[in-house]
Amino acid sequence: QQSSMTREEGIEKIAELVKGIRIAMFTSVSEDGRLHSRPMGTQSAEFDGTLWFFTWKNTEKVDEFQHNPHVNVAYSEPSKQTYVSVSGRANLVLDKAKMQELWEPPLKAWFPDGLDDPNIALIRVDVESAEYWDSPSSKMVHLYGM
Amino acid sequence: QQSSMTREEGIEKIAELVKGIRIAMFTSVSEDGRLHSRPMGTQSAEFDGTLWFFTWKNTEKVDEFQHNPHVNVAYSEPSKQTYVSVSGRANLVLDKAKMQELWEPPLKAWFPDGLDDPNIALIRVDVESAEYWDSPSSKMVHLYGM
Ligand SMILES: Cc1cc2nc3c(=O)[nH]c(=O)nc-3n(C[C@H](O)[C@H](O)[C@H](O)COP(=O)(O)O)c2cc1C
Repeated sequence: QQSSMTREEGIEKIAELVKGIRIAMFTSVSEDGRLHSRPMGTQSAEFDGTLWFFTWKNTEKVDEFQHNPHVNVAYSEPSKQTYVSVSGRANLVLDKAKMQELWEPPLKAWFPDGLDDPNIALIRVDVESAEYWDSPSSKMVHLYGM
Repeated sequence: QQSSMTREEGIEKIAELVKGIRIAMFTSVSEDGRLHSRPMGTQSAEFDGTLWFFTWKNTEKVDEFQHNPHVNVAYSEPSKQTYVSVSGRANLVLDKAKMQELWEPPLKAWFPDGLDDPNIALIRVDVESAEYWDSPSSKMVHLYGM
Protein backbone atom coordinates (compact mmCIF):
# COMPACT_ATOMS: atom_id res chain seq x y z
CA GLN A 1 0.00 0.00 0.00
CA GLN A 2 1.50 3.28 -1.08
CA SER A 3 0.62 6.34 0.87
CA SER A 4 -0.82 9.52 -0.58
CA MET A 5 0.61 11.55 2.30
CA THR A 6 2.75 14.54 1.57
CA ARG A 7 6.38 14.52 2.73
CA GLU A 8 5.41 16.66 5.75
CA GLU A 9 2.53 14.37 6.74
CA GLY A 10 4.81 11.34 6.38
CA ILE A 11 7.45 12.87 8.63
CA GLU A 12 4.81 13.78 11.19
CA LYS A 13 3.39 10.26 11.15
CA ILE A 14 6.84 8.69 11.67
CA ALA A 15 7.59 11.21 14.44
CA GLU A 16 4.37 10.23 16.20
CA LEU A 17 5.05 6.49 15.86
CA VAL A 18 8.69 6.45 17.02
CA LYS A 19 8.17 8.90 19.88
CA GLY A 20 9.18 7.22 23.12
CA ILE A 21 10.93 4.25 21.45
CA ARG A 22 14.32 4.66 23.17
CA ILE A 23 16.21 1.93 21.31
CA ALA A 24 16.26 1.17 17.58
CA MET A 25 18.10 -1.53 15.63
CA PHE A 26 20.62 0.06 13.24
CA THR A 27 21.59 -2.17 10.30
CA SER A 28 24.58 -1.64 8.00
CA VAL A 29 26.35 -3.70 5.36
CA SER A 30 29.85 -5.07 5.85
CA GLU A 31 32.45 -5.16 3.09
CA ASP A 32 31.68 -8.85 2.44
CA GLY A 33 27.97 -8.02 2.00
CA ARG A 34 26.71 -9.30 5.34
CA LEU A 35 24.06 -7.32 7.19
CA HIS A 36 24.78 -6.46 10.83
CA SER A 37 22.45 -4.77 13.24
CA ARG A 38 22.93 -3.41 16.73
CA PRO A 39 20.80 -1.56 19.29
CA MET A 40 21.31 2.21 19.30
CA GLY A 41 19.89 4.85 21.61
CA THR A 42 17.52 7.25 19.87
CA GLN A 43 17.19 11.00 20.41
CA SER A 44 14.24 12.47 22.26
CA ALA A 45 14.06 15.43 19.84
CA GLU A 46 11.14 15.03 17.44
CA PHE A 47 11.93 13.36 14.10
CA ASP A 48 12.15 15.97 11.33
CA GLY A 49 13.39 13.86 8.42
CA THR A 50 16.93 13.26 9.73
CA LEU A 51 18.00 10.76 12.37
CA TRP A 52 20.94 11.29 14.72
CA PHE A 53 22.89 8.84 16.87
CA PHE A 54 25.93 9.19 19.07
CA THR A 55 28.75 6.71 18.42
CA TRP A 56 32.48 6.15 18.79
CA LYS A 57 34.51 6.85 15.67
CA ASN A 58 36.45 3.61 15.72
CA THR A 59 33.59 1.13 15.53
CA GLU A 60 32.60 -1.47 13.01
CA LYS A 61 29.38 0.27 11.99
CA VAL A 62 31.31 3.44 11.10
CA ASP A 63 33.68 1.43 8.87
CA GLU A 64 30.66 -0.27 7.36
CA PHE A 65 28.65 2.82 6.44
CA GLN A 66 31.72 4.69 5.25
CA HIS A 67 32.20 1.86 2.77
CA ASN A 68 28.47 1.46 1.96
CA PRO A 69 26.26 4.34 3.18
CA HIS A 70 22.96 2.42 3.00
CA VAL A 71 21.51 1.72 6.44
CA ASN A 72 18.20 0.77 7.98
CA VAL A 73 16.83 1.90 11.31
CA ALA A 74 14.09 -0.36 12.67
CA TYR A 75 11.79 0.65 15.51
CA SER A 76 9.61 -2.00 17.08
CA GLU A 77 7.22 -1.69 19.99
CA PRO A 78 5.21 -4.94 20.07
CA SER A 79 3.15 -3.80 23.08
CA LYS A 80 1.71 -1.02 20.89
CA GLN A 81 1.92 -3.03 17.64
CA THR A 82 4.09 -0.28 16.20
CA TYR A 83 6.74 -1.19 13.64
CA VAL A 84 8.68 1.33 11.58
CA SER A 85 11.45 0.75 9.01
CA VAL A 86 13.51 3.74 7.92
CA SER A 87 15.93 3.49 4.95
CA GLY A 88 18.60 6.10 4.45
CA ARG A 89 22.24 7.00 4.07
CA ALA A 90 24.56 7.43 7.04
CA ASN A 91 27.32 10.02 7.47
CA LEU A 92 29.84 10.56 10.24
CA VAL A 93 29.56 14.07 11.71
CA LEU A 94 32.29 15.49 13.99
CA ASP A 95 30.65 18.89 14.62
CA LYS A 96 30.98 19.65 18.37
CA ALA A 97 28.23 22.30 18.30
CA LYS A 98 25.77 19.74 16.91
CA MET A 99 26.88 17.26 19.59
CA GLN A 100 26.22 19.88 22.27
CA GLU A 101 22.76 20.51 20.83
CA LEU A 102 21.88 16.79 20.85
CA TRP A 103 23.59 15.68 24.08
CA GLU A 104 21.27 14.25 26.74
CA PRO A 105 22.29 13.07 30.24
CA PRO A 106 21.17 9.42 29.76
CA LEU A 107 23.95 9.14 27.14
CA LYS A 108 26.41 9.11 30.08
CA ALA A 109 25.68 5.40 30.38
CA TRP A 110 27.46 4.85 27.04
CA PHE A 111 29.78 7.86 26.98
CA PRO A 112 30.93 8.44 30.58
CA ASP A 113 33.37 11.19 29.48
CA GLY A 114 30.60 12.92 27.54
CA LEU A 115 31.66 15.30 24.81
CA ASP A 116 35.24 15.35 26.17
CA ASP A 117 35.74 11.84 24.80
CA PRO A 118 38.03 12.41 21.78
CA ASN A 119 36.47 9.39 20.12
CA ILE A 120 32.82 10.54 20.27
CA ALA A 121 30.98 11.31 17.04
CA LEU A 122 27.53 11.62 15.52
CA ILE A 123 25.87 9.55 12.85
CA ARG A 124 23.47 11.51 10.67
CA VAL A 125 21.00 9.39 8.69
CA ASP A 126 19.44 11.17 5.74
CA VAL A 127 16.15 9.37 5.29
CA GLU A 128 15.17 8.23 1.78
CA SER A 129 12.05 6.19 2.46
CA ALA A 130 10.16 4.55 5.27
CA GLU A 131 7.45 2.01 5.92
CA TYR A 132 5.20 1.54 8.89
CA TRP A 133 2.69 -0.97 10.19
CA ASP A 134 0.04 0.65 12.24
CA SER A 135 -2.39 -1.03 14.58
CA PRO A 136 -5.06 -2.24 14.39
CA SER A 137 -4.95 -3.11 10.66
CA SER A 138 -1.20 -3.87 10.58
CA LYS A 139 -1.19 -2.98 6.89
CA MET A 140 2.11 -1.71 5.58
CA VAL A 141 2.25 1.90 4.40
CA HIS A 142 5.12 3.03 2.14
CA LEU A 143 6.43 6.58 2.42
CA TYR A 144 8.66 7.55 -0.48
CA GLY A 145 10.81 10.51 -1.21
CA MET A 146 11.42 11.63 2.32
CA GLN B 1 34.41 -9.23 22.38
CA GLN B 2 34.72 -12.46 20.45
CA SER B 3 33.21 -15.46 22.10
CA SER B 4 35.11 -18.61 22.89
CA MET B 5 31.88 -20.59 22.77
CA THR B 6 31.65 -23.61 20.51
CA ARG B 7 29.12 -23.53 17.67
CA GLU B 8 26.74 -25.63 19.79
CA GLU B 9 27.03 -23.34 22.80
CA GLY B 10 26.48 -20.28 20.58
CA ILE B 11 23.32 -21.78 19.08
CA GLU B 12 22.06 -22.67 22.55
CA LYS B 13 22.73 -19.13 23.79
CA ILE B 14 20.84 -17.57 20.86
CA ALA B 15 17.98 -20.06 21.33
CA GLU B 16 17.70 -19.05 24.98
CA LEU B 17 17.77 -15.31 24.18
CA VAL B 18 15.22 -15.29 21.35
CA LYS B 19 12.81 -17.72 23.00
CA GLY B 20 9.46 -16.02 23.41
CA ILE B 21 10.26 -13.08 21.10
CA ARG B 22 7.30 -13.47 18.73
CA ILE B 23 8.21 -10.79 16.21
CA ALA B 24 11.59 -10.05 14.62
CA MET B 25 12.62 -7.38 12.12
CA PHE B 26 13.75 -9.00 8.84
CA THR B 27 16.06 -6.79 6.74
CA SER B 28 16.94 -7.36 3.08
CA VAL B 29 18.64 -5.32 0.38
CA SER B 30 16.78 -3.96 -2.64
CA GLU B 31 18.26 -3.90 -6.13
CA ASP B 32 19.18 -0.21 -5.72
CA GLY B 33 21.08 -1.03 -2.50
CA ARG B 34 18.54 0.26 0.01
CA LEU B 35 17.92 -1.71 3.19
CA HIS B 36 14.31 -2.53 4.02
CA SER B 37 13.06 -4.18 7.17
CA ARG B 38 9.66 -5.50 8.18
CA PRO B 39 8.16 -7.31 11.15
CA MET B 40 7.89 -11.09 10.73
CA GLY B 41 6.39 -13.75 12.97
CA THR B 42 8.98 -16.11 14.47
CA GLN B 43 8.62 -19.86 15.04
CA SER B 44 8.13 -21.28 18.50
CA ALA B 45 10.37 -24.28 17.69
CA GLU B 46 13.78 -23.88 19.36
CA PHE B 47 16.50 -22.23 17.26
CA ASP B 48 18.92 -24.86 15.93
CA GLY B 49 21.07 -22.76 13.57
CA THR B 50 18.42 -22.18 10.88
CA LEU B 51 15.58 -19.66 10.98
CA TRP B 52 12.22 -20.18 9.27
CA PHE B 53 9.50 -17.72 8.37
CA PHE B 54 6.22 -18.04 6.51
CA THR B 55 5.70 -15.57 3.69
CA TRP B 56 3.88 -14.97 0.43
CA LYS B 57 5.84 -15.78 -2.74
CA ASN B 58 5.01 -12.55 -4.54
CA THR B 59 6.37 -10.04 -2.03
CA GLU B 60 9.15 -7.50 -2.19
CA LYS B 61 11.34 -9.24 0.37
CA VAL B 62 11.33 -12.43 -1.75
CA ASP B 63 12.42 -10.46 -4.83
CA GLU B 64 15.06 -8.76 -2.72
CA PHE B 65 16.69 -11.84 -1.22
CA GLN B 66 16.50 -13.74 -4.50
CA HIS B 67 18.61 -10.94 -5.99
CA ASN B 68 20.89 -10.54 -2.93
CA PRO B 69 20.67 -13.39 -0.38
CA HIS B 70 22.18 -11.45 2.55
CA VAL B 71 19.63 -10.72 5.26
CA ASN B 72 19.57 -9.73 8.91
CA VAL B 73 17.07 -10.83 11.52
CA ALA B 74 16.97 -8.53 14.56
CA TYR B 75 15.32 -9.52 17.84
CA SER B 76 14.78 -6.86 20.45
CA GLU B 77 13.15 -7.13 23.85
CA PRO B 78 13.82 -3.85 25.66
CA SER B 79 12.01 -4.99 28.83
CA LYS B 80 14.66 -7.73 29.25
CA GLN B 81 17.47 -5.71 27.64
CA THR B 82 17.89 -8.50 25.11
CA TYR B 83 19.12 -7.62 21.62
CA VAL B 84 20.20 -10.20 19.05
CA SER B 85 21.40 -9.66 15.47
CA VAL B 86 21.53 -12.69 13.17
CA SER B 87 23.24 -12.47 9.76
CA GLY B 88 22.60 -15.09 7.14
CA ARG B 89 21.44 -16.02 3.67
CA ALA B 90 17.80 -16.42 2.77
CA ASN B 91 16.26 -19.01 0.48
CA LEU B 92 12.67 -19.54 -0.69
CA VAL B 93 11.39 -23.03 0.20
CA LEU B 94 8.18 -24.44 -1.31
CA ASP B 95 8.25 -27.82 0.46
CA LYS B 96 4.68 -28.54 1.72
CA ALA B 97 5.88 -31.19 4.20
CA LYS B 98 8.17 -28.64 5.84
CA MET B 99 5.31 -26.13 5.93
CA GLN B 100 3.09 -28.73 7.64
CA GLU B 101 5.82 -29.36 10.21
CA LEU B 102 6.20 -25.63 11.00
CA TRP B 103 2.57 -24.50 10.75
CA GLU B 104 1.12 -23.03 13.94
CA PRO B 105 -2.46 -21.78 14.44
CA PRO B 106 -1.49 -18.14 15.26
CA LEU B 107 -0.24 -17.86 11.66
CA LYS B 108 -3.94 -17.77 10.64
CA ALA B 109 -3.83 -14.06 11.43
CA TRP B 110 -1.53 -13.55 8.43
CA PHE B 111 -2.49 -16.54 6.29
CA PRO B 112 -6.23 -17.07 6.74
CA ASP B 113 -6.28 -19.85 4.09
CA GLY B 114 -3.40 -21.62 5.78
CA LEU B 115 -1.40 -24.06 3.69
CA ASP B 116 -4.14 -24.07 1.00
CA ASP B 117 -3.02 -20.58 -0.01
CA PRO B 118 -1.24 -21.19 -3.34
CA ASN B 119 0.95 -18.20 -2.63
CA ILE B 120 2.30 -19.36 0.76
CA ALA B 121 5.98 -20.20 1.09
CA LEU B 122 8.77 -20.53 3.60
CA ILE B 123 11.93 -18.49 3.99
CA ARG B 124 14.89 -20.46 5.30
CA VAL B 125 17.71 -18.34 6.72
CA ASP B 126 21.04 -20.16 6.95
CA VAL B 127 22.81 -18.34 9.75
CA GLU B 128 26.41 -17.25 9.20
CA SER B 129 27.10 -15.17 12.30
CA ALA B 130 25.33 -13.49 15.17
CA GLU B 131 25.88 -10.92 17.87
CA TYR B 132 24.08 -10.40 21.11
CA TRP B 133 23.95 -7.86 23.92
CA ASP B 134 23.09 -9.41 27.19
CA SER B 135 21.96 -7.72 30.39
CA PRO B 136 23.29 -6.53 32.76
CA SER B 137 26.68 -5.80 31.15
CA SER B 138 25.27 -4.95 27.69
CA LYS B 139 28.63 -5.95 26.17
CA MET B 140 28.44 -7.24 22.62
CA VAL B 141 29.41 -10.86 22.02
CA HIS B 142 30.26 -12.02 18.48
CA LEU B 143 29.45 -15.55 17.42
CA TYR B 144 31.16 -16.57 14.20
CA GLY B 145 30.95 -19.59 11.99
CA MET B 146 27.45 -20.64 12.86
C1 LIG C 1 3.15 -8.18 13.79
C2 LIG C 1 3.37 -8.50 12.35
C3 LIG C 1 3.75 -9.80 11.99
C4 LIG C 1 3.95 -10.14 10.64
N1 LIG C 1 4.31 -11.43 10.33
C5 LIG C 1 4.52 -11.75 9.02
C6 LIG C 1 4.95 -13.06 8.66
O1 LIG C 1 5.16 -13.95 9.50
N2 LIG C 1 5.16 -13.31 7.34
C7 LIG C 1 4.99 -12.35 6.39
O2 LIG C 1 5.23 -12.63 5.22
N3 LIG C 1 4.58 -11.11 6.69
C8 LIG C 1 4.35 -10.78 7.99
N4 LIG C 1 3.95 -9.52 8.30
C9 LIG C 1 3.78 -8.54 7.22
C10 LIG C 1 5.12 -8.03 6.79
O3 LIG C 1 5.63 -7.16 7.78
C11 LIG C 1 5.09 -7.32 5.43
O4 LIG C 1 4.20 -6.23 5.46
C12 LIG C 1 4.68 -8.23 4.29
O5 LIG C 1 5.25 -9.52 4.44
C13 LIG C 1 5.12 -7.67 2.93
O6 LIG C 1 6.46 -7.30 3.05
P1 LIG C 1 7.41 -6.95 1.81
O7 LIG C 1 6.56 -6.23 0.80
O8 LIG C 1 8.47 -6.11 2.40
O9 LIG C 1 7.93 -8.24 1.30
C14 LIG C 1 3.76 -9.15 9.64
C15 LIG C 1 3.40 -7.85 10.01
C16 LIG C 1 3.20 -7.51 11.34
C17 LIG C 1 2.79 -6.11 11.70
